[in-house]
Amino acid sequence: MRVDAETANRIELYHLLTDVVNPRPIAWVTTMDRDGVVNLAPYSFFNVFGANPAIVAFSPAARRDGSKKDTLLNIESTGEFVINVAVESLTAEMVLSSKEVPHEQSEIELTGLTVVASEKVRPPRLRESPVQMECRLLQILTFGERPVAPHLVIGEVVLIHVDDSVIGDHGRVDPRKLKTIGRLGADWYCRTSDLFESARPG
Amino acid sequence: MRVDAETANRIELYHLLTDVVNPRPIAWVTTMDRDGVVNLAPYSFFNVFGANPAIVAFSPAARRDGSKKDTLLNIESTGEFVINVAVESLTAEMVLSSKEVPHEQSEIELTGLTVVASEKVRPPRLRESPVQMECRLLQILTFGERPVAPHLVIGEVVLIHVDDSVIGDHGRVDPRKLKTIGRLGADWYCRTSDLFESARPG
Repeated sequence: MRVDAETANRIELYHLLTDVVNPRPIAWVTTMDRDGVVNLAPYSFFNVFGANPAIVAFSPAARRDGSKKDTLLNIESTGEFVINVAVESLTAEMVLSSKEVPHEQSEIELTGLTVVASEKVRPPRLRESPVQMECRLLQILTFGERPVAPHLVIGEVVLIHVDDSVIGDHGRVDPRKLKTIGRLGADWYCRTSDLFESARPG
Repeated sequence: MRVDAETANRIELYHLLTDVVNPRPIAWVTTMDRDGVVNLAPYSFFNVFGANPAIVAFSPAARRDGSKKDTLLNIESTGEFVINVAVESLTAEMVLSSKEVPHEQSEIELTGLTVVASEKVRPPRLRESPVQMECRLLQILTFGERPVAPHLVIGEVVLIHVDDSVIGDHGRVDPRKLKTIGRLGADWYCRTSDLFESARPG
């Protein structure tokens, strides 16, 4: 199969890109509007891009009606967000939090999860998540004039909270304890249970 | 554990970020210098960020001596690259291609892999990879003045080649046929074998 990405149907291209670029890590993002309403939503167009400084980036796709998601509106307004790590035991809540609800309704209540205050930023952290990264916005890039053009939110991680339960014998986070989940295409996810080690060559 | 990412030791912060942001998809990137030498290297600070237009981004970390990697030099010079998808059956070759070799030596020969000409860009595609995405550079972002500051290479996918062997019954790529691998921290990787489906709520 050969797909010209410059002329392809955008829905079909979205499907293809998400079917082949995976497994994708999931940023479970908490933001807060100026009235204090907390938003929680998962994004798999996400990754870390460096440690010096600590750079993360994610793309909040448009809502189905083409408007901006609350996550993006809140970050544009406040310049702050928290990335909570999505793990296997919280899969149901993570998926539920992707539901489109009215702006004034919080996904925190919807999911039955709870939050705890952050230290360096105003949006709170998700208490149930074993790793929470407090972030400050660096810049938002857009690509083109289309209403649904991607927005790339780039931030610096300023503080990281790690629950002791996911730390292994040598002081580093152990993937067999953390148990992240990855996003694939369609409705597919993967567990990080089938692991192997391969050392980088000299 | 609580880590202040603004003041932490950079090596330890790199370890922590890669230990908790995962599983990461792997861009197995082919580039070509002006003399026609083909470079191949894997990068897991990578993802897709949208389909309209088709945006991908990855960060080629600095070499151990702080200098730029050939991938970055070639893209700066030519503005073109190909992202090949890393799959389970090619794990050994993918890991081997991360070896730091002199600029004039090609990882294609080192790994015993072969390439085939691209259509819209000059760097060739990796014949053995079941999915190859031809990309044009849009911009390179840098963050700070440090020699090892992250470079974020942002490109547009212009053409996608998909081997028929990974396409499922409904015409979409089937993750059980594609079998990507994901990158975690330290020397860990995951297979995408332990899958589950979870539909997004209405």
